[in-house]
Amino acid sequence: MLNKLRIGLAVVILMNLLAIRSDAQQDPFDLTVREKEYLEPAIPRPEQEKTTNEKLEKLYNQKQQQPNILIIIVDDMGWGDPGVYGGGAAIGAPTPNIDRLAHGGLRLTSTYAQPLCTPTRAALMTGRMPARSGLTRPILSGENPTTNPWQTENTAAKILSEGGYKTAISGKWHLGEGDGYYPNQVGYDEFLSIMSVESDFSQTFDAAIYPELIYNKERYDMIQKIVHPELYKGVKGEKPYVERELNNLEELSEIDQAFADYSEDFIRRSVKEKKPFYLIHSFSKVHNDNYPSKEYRGKSPAATPYKDAIVEVDDITGRLMALLDELDIEENTFVFFTSDNGANEDVWPDAGHQPFRGGKGTTWEGGVRVPGIAYWKGMISPGQTNDGLFDICDLFNTALALGGVTEEIPNSNYIDGVDQTAFLLAENGKSKRQTVFMYGATTLTAVRWQEYKVHFKVFLTQGTRQNIDESVLVTASPSPWVYNLYLDPKEQRSSGHRYFEWGIPRVLGFLKNHAATYVKYPMKDIGLGI
Amino acid sequence: MLNKLRIGLAVVILMNLLAIRSDAQQDPFDLTVREKEYLEPAIPRPEQEKTTNEKLEKLYNQKQQQPNILIIIVDDMGWGDPGVYGGGAAIGAPTPNIDRLAHGGLRLTSTYAQPLCTPTRAALMTGRMPARSGLTRPILSGENPTTNPWQTENTAAKILSEGGYKTAISGKWHLGEGDGYYPNQVGYDEFLSIMSVESDFSQTFDAAIYPELIYNKERYDMIQKIVHPELYKGVKGEKPYVERELNNLEELSEIDQAFADYSEDFIRRSVKEKKPFYLIHSFSKVHNDNYPSKEYRGKSPAATPYKDAIVEVDDITGRLMALLDELDIEENTFVFFTSDNGANEDVWPDAGHQPFRGGKGTTWEGGVRVPGIAYWKGMISPGQTNDGLFDICDLFNTALALGGVTEEIPNSNYIDGVDQTAFLLAENGKSKRQTVFMYGATTLTAVRWQEYKVHFKVFLTQGTRQNIDESVLVTASPSPWVYNLYLDPKEQRSSGHRYFEWGIPRVLGFLKNHAATYVKYPMKDIGLGI
Repeated sequence: MLNKLRIGLAVVILMNLLAIRSDAQQDPFDLTVREKEYLEPAIPRPEQEKTTNEKLEKLYNQKQQQPNILIIIVDDMGWGDPGVYGGGAAIGAPTPNIDRLAHGGLRLTSTYAQPLCTPTRAALMTGRMPARSGLTRPILSGENPTTNPWQTENTAAKILSEGGYKTAISGKWHLGEGDGYYPNQVGYDEFLSIMSVESDFSQTFDAAIYPELIYNKERYDMIQKIVHPELYKGVKGEKPYVERELNNLEELSEIDQAFADYSEDFIRRSVKEKKPFYLIHSFSKVHNDNYPSKEYRGKSPAATPYKDAIVEVDDITGRLMALLDELDIEENTFVFFTSDNGANEDVWPDAGHQPFRGGKGTTWEGGVRVPGIAYWKGMISPGQTNDGLFDICDLFNTALALGGVTEEIPNSNYIDGVDQTAFLLAENGKSKRQTVFMYGATTLTAVRWQEYKVHFKVFLTQGTRQNIDESVLVTASPSPWVYNLYLDPKEQRSSGHRYFEWGIPRVLGFLKNHAATYVKYPMKDIGLGI
Repeated sequence: MLNKLRIGLAVVILMNLLAIRSDAQQDPFDLTVREKEYLEPAIPRPEQEKTTNEKLEKLYNQKQQQPNILIIIVDDMGWGDPGVYGGGAAIGAPTPNIDRLAHGGLRLTSTYAQPLCTPTRAALMTGRMPARSGLTRPILSGENPTTNPWQTENTAAKILSEGGYKTAISGKWHLGEGDGYYPNQVGYDEFLSIMSVESDFSQTFDAAIYPELIYNKERYDMIQKIVHPELYKGVKGEKPYVERELNNLEELSEIDQAFADYSEDFIRRSVKEKKPFYLIHSFSKVHNDNYPSKEYRGKSPAATPYKDAIVEVDDITGRLMALLDELDIEENTFVFFTSDNGANEDVWPDAGHQPFRGGKGTTWEGGVRVPGIAYWKGMISPGQTNDGLFDICDLFNTALALGGVTEEIPNSNYIDGVDQTAFLLAENGKSKRQTVFMYGATTLTAVRWQEYKVHFKVFLTQGTRQNIDESVLVTASPSPWVYNLYLDPKEQRSSGHRYFEWGIPRVLGFLKNHAATYVKYPMKDIGLGI
């Protein structure tokens, strides 16, 4: 409530400033152009756009089908976990399959997610800042939003399905439970999912971690009424159903194998039906608590649950890639590998790794910067690394562009994503995104622009490590905190006034333009606010 | 002096404990075997040894010459600087050439240097812990050791030169100045070097950084008498001479280009003479202060001196590799790329990067863990990553083994290095090194064993960052601090008593064996102690 008010006031103030701006010349540092009122302005890159379109057209003529889209999203994996980002063998969990994806394609070093799982998934599916959809934080056990956000949201899956794609999600959903919230009710042709999150279930099973919950009979009986460990399944137009109850840790430990089987089956069926597919393979792992599938226990050199889970995730990634190869569709499948937020330092040390400050739940780099690998045999040149900005919500626009249905985006909702097809497909491509706006729920906290990170509000913590539950959000007053991420990737010393006075007015300008979009396209309150 | 006494006492105490041990069975966790009294015990790996020897023999029969050895050592480059270690484009300084070396060969993730430049170079050249040679810290402007350590030290260059190699060092020396200290007087056939270090010279030139030294005439005149910015050149048997005086920052900025030219010329001449070469290409960069060569200014995306210097270092690495290719000797040249210590946080933020605690001058991972890439076309399989332990002093033994002159190592000095040829050349090789012992000057501070790091003494600092000059060395009492580097690579929380009680007696045992070697092979005091 307080947050809403704060942003509301900010918008009013900014609108007054905007009144001045409307007559003014565009800032020379602002390279963006707004093509439509409801679309985020982007940096035009006509040349790479042209080359890319030619490449795509050629492919289409060859395959006579739109390309498949496979988005692989891991839960809580840190930027530094994969070997190609400096982790892997060095931290006791080699990732040869993820590394192979990167070596065979494009490794992005500045991909940004939202700081928490639900907001990132909402942004991925709607192309919108979570504050607009209202899905600003995880929906916890037994909670119900006051409004179903999906009534007025459009998923990429829905638009692609209407455009001839076969669409599915396999794995973690965590975007609401109950009627009207299931994937097959919001645009997916089918799904196999857990509706919430790994830890929701493990707290009802694991007496080693949650003795006070499991050995206290009264409490245990109550939690049984709220938490329902099960896999849900559904197809469009039909009532979703419980495919499998999960009764213990052994059964819970196998769910990522079930999702892998389901994804493989879905891909095979799509190919058989000769329909292009859009599949989000959404790992339950490596969110705490980690229970590697039977054959993965002790398989990592570190031999701990998190590290073994990384090896399992890597192996499944390899399985999916091997299937594309087996079915001979690698050349017609765009693959994007990422994570939904930074490493969770609350469960450290058997947790994700990164060379950044902070972790999940914050907008320090450790909370929002994630692996981002684009792979497409024959379409994306192998061995590339690129530091251009990429926001997970860009996958909305990019998927629709690949599906040829960009024009079908309804103009009722503001879309914060940018079509990055040409950035990803061009040789040494350039990002069309000028800025990444970062939020803690509905509060704008920071902006990334070029190599600069400008914090307007900061998450402060106690002790040396970041801990979501022990952080406070304060205003970086009297002026923003600024970090040059090339020199200070760990965000250790703000150097705004010493080296960035020239840039602060620029970023304030970008922020004004961003805030102005909320006037016509306001935030949605679905009852998750504090 | 105090340090010496402390170690002296420690040795006596440990010897008493050893008296007990001599009757005892070897600890089951101790996998090493000592082959000769003056050689460090190593883990036998007979199978990979056999395969490797066959490969080497086959190559020798083909080339009728021992392989060339090219060691590329950068000054103060952080573990995280190259792209393949998580840096590169992500921190504004892409390293395509270094990355190519790694992709084409073996990337080691646990290579250890000494915490400072002079000790690492001493260890590289002698195969010995710096405490044994006495070269425990940089020799500063106008300082003279009381004893010339080189009178009783044997460099790999000397042994290889006597064994038919053409040997040279190109670049930074920093192992003593004056008669008896020059590379051509301690075993090198020839050299082109600066005798000290970049910052020694820049302090006489750069009024932007050192105004109080340059604008104070009296002080300036005095420093002129101590510091002599010049390039020295020499060949064996002849008096070394000043090849070129450096008169200003412009001239200083070009020295790494001069070293590159010299290395290229040396390699060409060696090939012409049909002699195998042993070349240490020892960059002056990226030690502060960095002055990129003219054409490199602003060449990195970050456009700062350090980052531009990284790009220059990477380009020169590429030049050397291109030359091996041009001369068609890539298949007969073993290349090892590394750094002499961790990133220097004293000159942060335009400095090296790593995801570790601490920096140069300490034995936190940030001070001693460095990039280590082994490349050898046709002999080392491409695309490998390996977390096996490697100590820079192992390059002494490895180079001699490749040169076929291992038997020529005099038995007068204890050799702490281990021959790692088979580890580097085997497919998924295993390290022969069981432990890495870490020192601050003559004080043993920490031991790395498997994924564990055990600190007996720790460098404590003020503030959030490590700063050599603001650290104090204290005993980690009442018991060692222990970190599992797979789970806690940043060494944030000691977990010894919780998870490592089983291991502490093991590590203490290794330490006893190590300390015992000092009885017959004592430390050398060359007057650099405090």
